[in-house]
Amino acid sequence: MSIKNNNFMRRAIALAKHGMENNAGGPFGAVVVKEGKIISEGFNRVTSKNDPTAHAEIVAIRKACEKLNSFQLTGCTIYTSCEPCPMCLGAIYWARPDKVYYACNRVDAAEIEFDDQFIYNELDVSIENRQIKFDQVLREEALEVFKVWIQKNDKTEY
Amino acid sequence: MSIKNNNFMRRAIALAKHGMENNAGGPFGAVVVKEGKIISEGFNRVTSKNDPTAHAEIVAIRKACEKLNSFQLTGCTIYTSCEPCPMCLGAIYWARPDKVYYACNRVDAAEIEFDDQFIYNELDVSIENRQIKFDQVLREEALEVFKVWIQKNDKTEY
Repeated sequence: MSIKNNNFMRRAIALAKHGMENNAGGPFGAVVVKEGKIISEGFNRVTSKNDPTAHAEIVAIRKACEKLNSFQLTGCTIYTSCEPCPMCLGAIYWARPDKVYYACNRVDAAEIEFDDQFIYNELDVSIENRQIKFDQVLREEALEVFKVWIQKNDKTEY
Repeated sequence: MSIKNNNFMRRAIALAKHGMENNAGGPFGAVVVKEGKIISEGFNRVTSKNDPTAHAEIVAIRKACEKLNSFQLTGCTIYTSCEPCPMCLGAIYWARPDKVYYACNRVDAAEIEFDDQFIYNELDVSIENRQIKFDQVLREEALEVFKVWIQKNDKTEY
């Protein structure tokens, strides 16, 4: 962990503090770094933007991809002030950065009443036993679209 | 499952087809329903918008929240043409709709090469053993922000 890496994390922590102080949302910040430079920054804006997906990591990932004109973060590192929740972890896997640094962990988050662990637990519960009810319908009709996709010649895969 | 519910899912499937045909992204669609009416629609736009988070469910959830001026989808039902990936499942838990209907499942998605199961598996791997490397740094410095959050009087909790 070099001084430079520490400074990227310190920027993520500063963004967490800034968002909190300005009532943007929860106390979380993140930056995306490529080739030794910050290319995007984000802080939680859930409550101020009425967007439950506006977590720091999602905000920073979307901005970085916009800047890079790419839906992939190859060669990038994400610094986030807290271990990503399942939503953000999923977003990270779809964006595929090279590496992630985090500061606080999910236990620390739970202690300030952001219960990511509850969602982690629900992911492991079979779909019929979750606290939000999930029902499957019309699978056959939806599969018809998948069949067309497989045969589509001009698709962009990811 | 009433005819009306079927029609909401058919709309989600039609959106999947529409997005695919217009090269917006993968073949996935979703709608959010409140009080018997569709209040938002989404289809996958990952590759056309260079946004790895622009899955059908995330697009529909963001639009629904914007319309409702709320970061919660209380009283809403989500219809999605495919079982949500971990990112979208996380978003659903943060948005807290009453119920989710899905059509295809994660196995069907894997068969057309959208490997949500890989991400589900990674969520269960301990953080030090994941395929994307995660390292913890500066936890103590980040915890200082959490300590201020706990004592903050004017925060909006969620």
